[in-house]
Amino acid sequence: MKLSGGVEWALHCCVVLSGVTVPVPAAKLAEFHDVSPTYLAKQLQSMSRAGLVRSVQGQAGGYVLTRSADSITVLDVVDAVDGGEPAFHCTEIRQRGPLATPVEKCVKPCAIARAMAAADRAWREALRASTIADLARDVNEDAGRDVMIGVRGWLGVPAGHPLPLHATR
Amino acid sequence: MKLSGGVEWALHCCVVLSGVTVPVPAAKLAEFHDVSPTYLAKQLQSMSRAGLVRSVQGQAGGYVLTRSADSITVLDVVDAVDGGEPAFHCTEIRQRGPLATPVEKCVKPCAIARAMAAADRAWREALRASTIADLARDVNEDAGRDVMIGVRGWLGVPAGHPLPLHATR
Repeated sequence: MKLSGGVEWALHCCVVLSGVTVPVPAAKLAEFHDVSPTYLAKQLQSMSRAGLVRSVQGQAGGYVLTRSADSITVLDVVDAVDGGEPAFHCTEIRQRGPLATPVEKCVKPCAIARAMAAADRAWREALRASTIADLARDVNEDAGRDVMIGVRGWLGVPAGHPLPLHATR
Repeated sequence: MKLSGGVEWALHCCVVLSGVTVPVPAAKLAEFHDVSPTYLAKQLQSMSRAGLVRSVQGQAGGYVLTRSADSITVLDVVDAVDGGEPAFHCTEIRQRGPLATPVEKCVKPCAIARAMAAADRAWREALRASTIADLARDVNEDAGRDVMIGVRGWLGVPAGHPLPLHATR
């Protein structure tokens, strides 16, 4: 089982976007994380299609989160980038072979598919329990300092923007 | 995120093996499930390497479970066939770029990797909570009858073998 590598990049980008006060160009996000701008552009587009980020046009343009970081879950980002398909796909093996169960008798999903779906729900529930704001807090706690001060400095964010764009709560 | 399609086949095979009293040839398992014998052979080999099934040689040879169905979890089978790697792979993005965290300061796993690992644990825990015996019971309940009677009949299992080989508990 493997998630798209873009999930890691996208989550890191969301953490950065949660801590800055101005739109951040895609090229800057790629440079900051030292990742391929082309591949990162795809993750940003996926997140934009899912309504998690939006692109602000203009000279000071770039990406911003569309809502506060505590209302974007890790699951939102994973689903946006990885597609949200369950890991297990039931091909209805029970309806095949010499003792096949007739389709009209397959009222419930197959017992095996149910067990796999329960695990999928547990996985999604765990990802839903964690938000971008949680990740940003943990990143700061790990570093023992406000990492975003350095990020804002590197991005050249002007003074007078003390709050993240979407920290409206 | 996607699991190997072999997981479904392997779980169905384990359910069948839990309900019969004699070794079942790989070709019979493939025929019963109407799946490719070549591809199924790979899943059976993976399960054999993981110690879940073993191959009995001889004219009446085939595969048997190595232990009782209530001591083989769905996770055991998934790990055997899919490899057991976590879905998320951390590439230590925090150690890259202009504000890279020095490696010696990365004492804990990255906050993002921790969130993903928590979800992985939840997924594995759910799969560990379900055994092949549970699946077999659910298959019977869904069908409203002992499906294994039909399976044993189709396999031509001789009389006088009332109990599964490994139902020793």
